[in-house]
Order: sequence, then C-alpha cells, then structure tokens
Amino acid sequence: MSDTPDSAVRTYIQQHRAAFLDDLADWLRIPSVSAQPDHAADVRRSADWLAAKLKETGFPVTEVWPTPGAPAVFAEWPSGDPDAPTVLVYGHHDVQPAAREDGWHTDPFEPQIIDGRMYGRGAADDKGQVFFHTLGVRAHLAVTGRTAPAVNLKLLIEGEEESGSPNFRALVEANAARLAAHTVIVSDTGMWSETTPTVCTGMRGLADCEIELYGPDQDIHSGSFGGAVPNPATVAARLVAALHDADEQVTIPGFYDGIAPLTDAERELFAELPFDEGSWLNTAKSHGTLGEAGYSTLERVWARPTAELNGIGGGYQGPGGKTIIPSSAQLKLTFRLVAGQDPDKVERAITDWVAARVPAGIRHELSFGASTRPCLTPLDHPALQSVVRAMGRAFDGQKIRFTREGGSGPAADLQDVLDAPVLFLGISVPSDGWHGPNEKVELDLLLKGVETTAHLWGDLAAALRWKR
Amino acid sequence: MSDTPDSAVRTYIQQHRAAFLDDLADWLRIPSVSAQPDHAADVRRSADWLAAKLKETGFPVTEVWPTPGAPAVFAEWPSGDPDAPTVLVYGHHDVQPAAREDGWHTDPFEPQIIDGRMYGRGAADDKGQVFFHTLGVRAHLAVTGRTAPAVNLKLLIEGEEESGSPNFRALVEANAARLAAHTVIVSDTGMWSETTPTVCTGMRGLADCEIELYGPDQDIHSGSFGGAVPNPATVAARLVAALHDADEQVTIPGFYDGIAPLTDAERELFAELPFDEGSWLNTAKSHGTLGEAGYSTLERVWARPTAELNGIGGGYQGPGGKTIIPSSAQLKLTFRLVAGQDPDKVERAITDWVAARVPAGIRHELSFGASTRPCLTPLDHPALQSVVRAMGRAFDGQKIRFTREGGSGPAADLQDVLDAPVLFLGISVPSDGWHGPNEKVELDLLLKGVETTAHLWGDLAAALRWKR
Repeated sequence: MSDTPDSAVRTYIQQHRAAFLDDLADWLRIPSVSAQPDHAADVRRSADWLAAKLKETGFPVTEVWPTPGAPAVFAEWPSGDPDAPTVLVYGHHDVQPAAREDGWHTDPFEPQIIDGRMYGRGAADDKGQVFFHTLGVRAHLAVTGRTAPAVNLKLLIEGEEESGSPNFRALVEANAARLAAHTVIVSDTGMWSETTPTVCTGMRGLADCEIELYGPDQDIHSGSFGGAVPNPATVAARLVAALHDADEQVTIPGFYDGIAPLTDAERELFAELPFDEGSWLNTAKSHGTLGEAGYSTLERVWARPTAELNGIGGGYQGPGGKTIIPSSAQLKLTFRLVAGQDPDKVERAITDWVAARVPAGIRHELSFGASTRPCLTPLDHPALQSVVRAMGRAFDGQKIRFTREGGSGPAADLQDVLDAPVLFLGISVPSDGWHGPNEKVELDLLLKGVETTAHLWGDLAAALRWKR
Repeated sequence: MSDTPDSAVRTYIQQHRAAFLDDLADWLRIPSVSAQPDHAADVRRSADWLAAKLKETGFPVTEVWPTPGAPAVFAEWPSGDPDAPTVLVYGHHDVQPAAREDGWHTDPFEPQIIDGRMYGRGAADDKGQVFFHTLGVRAHLAVTGRTAPAVNLKLLIEGEEESGSPNFRALVEANAARLAAHTVIVSDTGMWSETTPTVCTGMRGLADCEIELYGPDQDIHSGSFGGAVPNPATVAARLVAALHDADEQVTIPGFYDGIAPLTDAERELFAELPFDEGSWLNTAKSHGTLGEAGYSTLERVWARPTAELNGIGGGYQGPGGKTIIPSSAQLKLTFRLVAGQDPDKVERAITDWVAARVPAGIRHELSFGASTRPCLTPLDHPALQSVVRAMGRAFDGQKIRFTREGGSGPAADLQDVLDAPVLFLGISVPSDGWHGPNEKVELDLLLKGVETTAHLWGDLAAALRWKR
C-alpha cells in the first residue's frame, strides 16, 4: 500500500486545480475531429499541444508519432527503481464531430464551466480523462517526494479512436518494444454513476460498415417510372429492416458464432448494480426500451452484440416534397461485438448477406472501417485490486463495483500485441453525453480521477512486484 | 374541319420561332420552385411575367389570382361567335427544385439551346408546354384571318402543381363560374416518344405523406445504449420495408379497394405500343425492372397504384462514421393512385397502418400534402378525336395512339368541379428528364405543340358544335 497521506494529495490537487482546468479548456478548444478530413490539421495541432503539455508535466520523453492518418502522442517517464513494473496508459486526443446546430447550448469548441461541469466536445471523451493523468502523476511525486513515478509510466494517446483506430494496431505492432508494459490502463470508459463508483471489466468490439446503393443514373420522376424500377432508398430500408427478426436478434447467418452464453455469475454481477429503468432511460434520453428477447437492458448493452443504424440517407430531404425515385442511398451501420466474435468473420458474413439481398438493377458498394476487437479483462488480476483500492481512497471508502462498457476501444489490440492485461480506469458518467450535443465532464469526478492516479502508481508498483 | 392550310401555319411559326424561344428562355430564368419557401417571390414573379406575356399575346383578360400559397394566372379570350364552345387550358408555371450539384451540366435556371434542345428547369414540365399555347393561338388567328379564337379560350396556369396543388381545388371552386368550359385541355403530359405521337387518356392520382419519427431526445452513443433502445431511423426503415410484400404489392389494408381489374381491351391498347424494355430502361436511366407481380411494366406505371419512397434521412450522413443512435428520422412517401381509389380513404388507411407499426418509445408525426385524384378520360368523346386530328396534321399524318400517364395532376379536380371532360395535349417525351437534372424540351416537338393548337381550336369548335 502507498504511504501517501490522502489529505496531502487533496491539498496538492486543490492548489493546482485552476491551472489544470484552464489547461484542459485550452486543449478542448482544438477541434480535433478525426472523422472529418477538413479537421486533419486540428488533430495534428491537438497532438502537438499534448506532447508539449506532457513535456511540461515532466515526462522526459515526449514524441508525436505519425501514422498514415492522424498522429498519436507517446510519452515515457522511467521510474528510478530498477524493479518497478511498467504501465502503459491508453487514451485518445481526437473527438467526435460536433456542431452548434446539433443542439449544443454552448459552442462545442469553446468550453464553459457551468454548475461544476465543464461543457465542450471531448470534455469526457476523452481529453478530460487523458488529462487527469498529468496532474495525477505530479501529485504522486509531490506527496511521495519522488522525482520519478513509482512505475515506469508510458502514455500512448492516439488520434483516430473516433474513426475506428484504423492505424492503431499497426502503430502498436511497429512500436511494440517501446510500448512493452506489464499492465495497460485504459482511461476511456465510465462509471455506473456519480454515486456508484465502478471499474469496467470489458468493452464491446466494433465492425463499421458503410453501404452505398445505386439505382437510376439520376433522380427520376416517381410518377413516370414509379412501380416499375427498383428504388435504392427502398432497398436500403429493406436491408435495415431485415437485419433483425421479431425477437430483435440479428439475422445475419453466423453473426453469433463463438459467443459463450452468459453465466449465472456474470448475470448476478450485473444484477447487483442499482439499475433503475426510469433513470437509465433518462440518461439514455430515450422513451422506451427495445432489444434482444431474453436479456435485460444491461445484458443487452454490455454482453450482447448489436446491429445498429447510425445514419441513412437517400432522395429528397429538403422542405416540401419532391416526387422522385432517388438515384442512390447510403447506410452507415455499426455492429457491436462481444467476446468470442471475430470481426473479420463478422465482416465476411455481412458482405455475403448484403450481396444476397440487393436486387437486380441496384448496384452496391460496401466498405468497412477498421474493426475493433471485443475485450474482457480477468477479474482475478492483482492490478485490478490496485485500481479498486486507489479508487476507493479517492471515493472516500465507497465500495467499488464492476461494470462493463457497451462502447468499443482498441484495448484489445494492446492486449493482443503487448500480451498484457488491460484494466480500465475511467471517471466519466453516463450523463456526460458522449458523442451527443452538450458533452461535459463533472469537475468533482475529474479531480477524483486525478486523485486515483495519485494513489495508483505506488499501489500498483507494490502489487505487481508481489505478483512477479 | 378547319380550313387553315397547314403550310401557312408552319410558315407563320417559323417566322416567329426565334422570338418565341427567347421569350420562353426568359421565363425559364425565373426559379419558380413552389416547394421551397425562399422561392415564393420567384413564383409570384413567374405569374406576373406570364400574365404580361398573355396580355401581349392578345388575351383581353389576364389576371393573377392569389391563393393562400402561390398565385395562378387566368386569361380569357372570348370568341366572336355566340355559338362557340368554351375550352379551358390547364398548365402550371411552378417548377421542381433544381440545383447545379444534382448533376446538371448547365445552370438549371440559365436555359441553353444545345443540339435542338432547350435545357432548363421547367423547359418541358411545364413552362414549355404552357408556352406553346401563346404562339399557337397567334398562328390560329393569323392563318384564319380571325381577330378572336374560334373557341372561347380560357387559360388557368397554376403555381403549386409541383407542391401537390394544395389550394387548387378551392381556387377552382371559388371561380367555377368564370372557369366554366365545355372541355378542359391539360397541357402537362407527354407522348410515347419522338417518333410515336400519342394522346394521353389518364393520369394517376397522388397521396403525399411525410413521417417524422422521434426517439432519443438527442443523438446518443450507440455503444453505451445500442441494443436496448429503439432507433427511429431503424423504425423508419422498417416502415418502408413493410410497405410491400414479396410480390411488391402494397400491404396497407384497404389500399386497393375500389380498383377495377384491367380489362383485356385496356391491356391490348397498352400492348399495341412499341414497348422495348431496353429503351424504356434507358429512358428511366435504370438498370432493372421491379414491380407488382402479374403486371407488365406499362401496366405497373399507368394502371396500378404504388407506394414510393422519395426521401429518407436520419442520423449521421457526413464523411466518415459517427457511432450514434440518431434522435430522429424522416420519410417522404408518395402513393400513386388509380381510378377507383379515394385519396381520403387511402390517407386514413396509411395513418392507421403507420400508427400500428411504430413501437413504444418512438413518437411519430404524420402529415399529408394535398392529394390529387386519379383521372381517366372517356375514349369516345368527340373532342378527343379533334385533338387526334390536330396532332395528326402537326405530325405529318402519323397515326396518333393512346397512352396513359403514370404522373399526377389536378385534372380530376377540374373534371369534378367544372363537370367537363378532361383531355390531354402534351408534346414532352420521356427523355425530357422531368424532376431530374438536365430537364430539356425538344424544340421540334415544342413547335409541333404550337402547330397542333393552331389547328385545334377551329376543329374543336366544329366538333363540339356538332355534339351539342
């Protein structure tokens, strides 16, 4: 156990709180939207900004690593202790698209602090959660009197997570020696709620599919030709409708192959959480549940795969009407995957299924973004207990429970390539509005993230030394 | 029969051809797009332009008739003959939306003559076809030596046809006495082809439906919530997919009520036409046929009702991906109707069908634009024979055959309110690209439209006098 007095950590954090929040706000002003090519320069600027900030924090090694897409940031701070374990922190500095007209009450790239929350794209996903590591390591040093962390601390903060991390695996493979770690800590997840702190133990994977459907060479008159030629927008809709059966199970043959049934023990861990459908729906900003028959809501989002329509477009969408058969239509689909599913096999199954369903007279093009593998962390790893203890101190002794994440991240690539267990340390809460308008981070929780990492490195150094 | 020498008509038209085309081009420059509120002033300008041009043509009465929407133009030229029948010509001066980026090779509102065709929005649908009546009546007077037409000639050129004529029926009802006519001539249709001149004998009706579907109050993360809440874009797609069964029949209960089966005689008239699937597909710019089982392509577009998706939109449609469950989605549907179907009953059936299919957690709003009734003209009316004769002279004695139109117009309202038979006189051809990019009119055919009307009024005066 660490010998750091908890109160000293808190005092240190309070003293540096204002500068820390100012710095985070500066970072959030950079619209590092990796999915939009016209923001490519902003993503590079975000990487440079972070590298400079990590250098200022004290990391002796800070590098911007180019990729064929957006750059990642690597930083390293060796421990003085030759026996110290090595920890690699993962996060990302790119953000989802955001525009004022999507329903933001403030400019998404001009952060505002209102009622103890910082609003801005990336506040929670993921810049805020990357950033708590900067003040955390400073607090760790300040209260322990160390000049270097108790662990060999490495950071890898990528720039394409919101675009499906297309170059991430190759980057990790190419730099596997420099990234080598005993444990990976992913700070890109959330907790159950403000009042129920939790550690995440798994994430779903992702297959990301775009389908273009082409019918007539141009929009044609729906009176002159309607009823006699295939309509690509209708074909698009029929594909979407055919994705699920009446039980909301995905109909693509082979989609569920390899998934182990949920065990009773797993279902009990889920059932232990104070789930309330009304408040869950409130967080989901939704007005009803709908999902795979035979599973609870938590099971549906944490332990079952999905086929989700993220966007559909075809034909006339302006004001009034336009009596056409559109010339083309487009689908954006994502498939969340769970342990046991192989993204490559799933993509082949999708490809075959779509090809068999597009009628004569309609041409289709199908493309996949980079896939993300599902990930499930071992519940019995000693490092997990370190995270639980460090969080418990930050959260005033509250019991830390276990969750999973419905979302996806490249954690599994780190696990695969580096052969290291992946743990999750995230302080975001569901109301933070990831990917939607008015994304925010709770400042109290953000500082508990700082506090957790201030405790974590000492605890982990002891726990992993014991294990090895 | 008229005593007008055909050659004199042709000479007169050739003498006035250049000015006539210049004037039409001026009119096409006015972007009178009735579906787009920001073009409301342009639609008014179009009406004023036409009224001024009809006054210049010689109509003693020219009026712009306001409606709650866009204005119509009314013009009247009484015959000197107290026994002359009255003919009402119908057309429209509003046009479909058009934007260069839809695939136009020229500015849609800067008409260009290329290879004997005038390109521009409205060239064929419907400004060109309205406009041939101006030179037509001048030619009729010039070669007969009359100072007024052989019929009492009235024109009603509305401004909301491309928006479903929401105020047309009320306008006709309010002005029924002034619009009273023995025969209505609709110039808003087409012919079989450049080489097979035809007269249209029926149009499909239209019910126009827009459905908004609302799910989460904002876009939400498809990882955190996907698989457990209903997705409004998926619901939209499922509605579209459920509209048809495997035989491409519309599944809405009661949709087909009242439709008489096609007779063998009707099917034979269709079969007489030189239909070639390859060239029809070429005109349709399409790459395959698909439609209701048991019917030919012509039967599908002329004599059978449809449910067509004109536009669908929901979620993220920009570059790259966005892992969201969208907060809303939108459908634009039109239903083509045939004789026997009642638009009001069809709309009630659609409303009930949609309401029964939207799941809990999704709110929907459904709205209908003004409907258009289907219309079928009697094949045995003497005025139809006048049209056939006048066209025959313009087309150098070619046999004039009969078609129907898959499109819709407010012809049936005129038939209902004025209690007058509706005939169709249109010279457009399928390749004119109505509603799509690069709409054009063939100048040779446009001038045959002029020539037909130059012959028609004298023939019709004789034919209808005989009938009464």
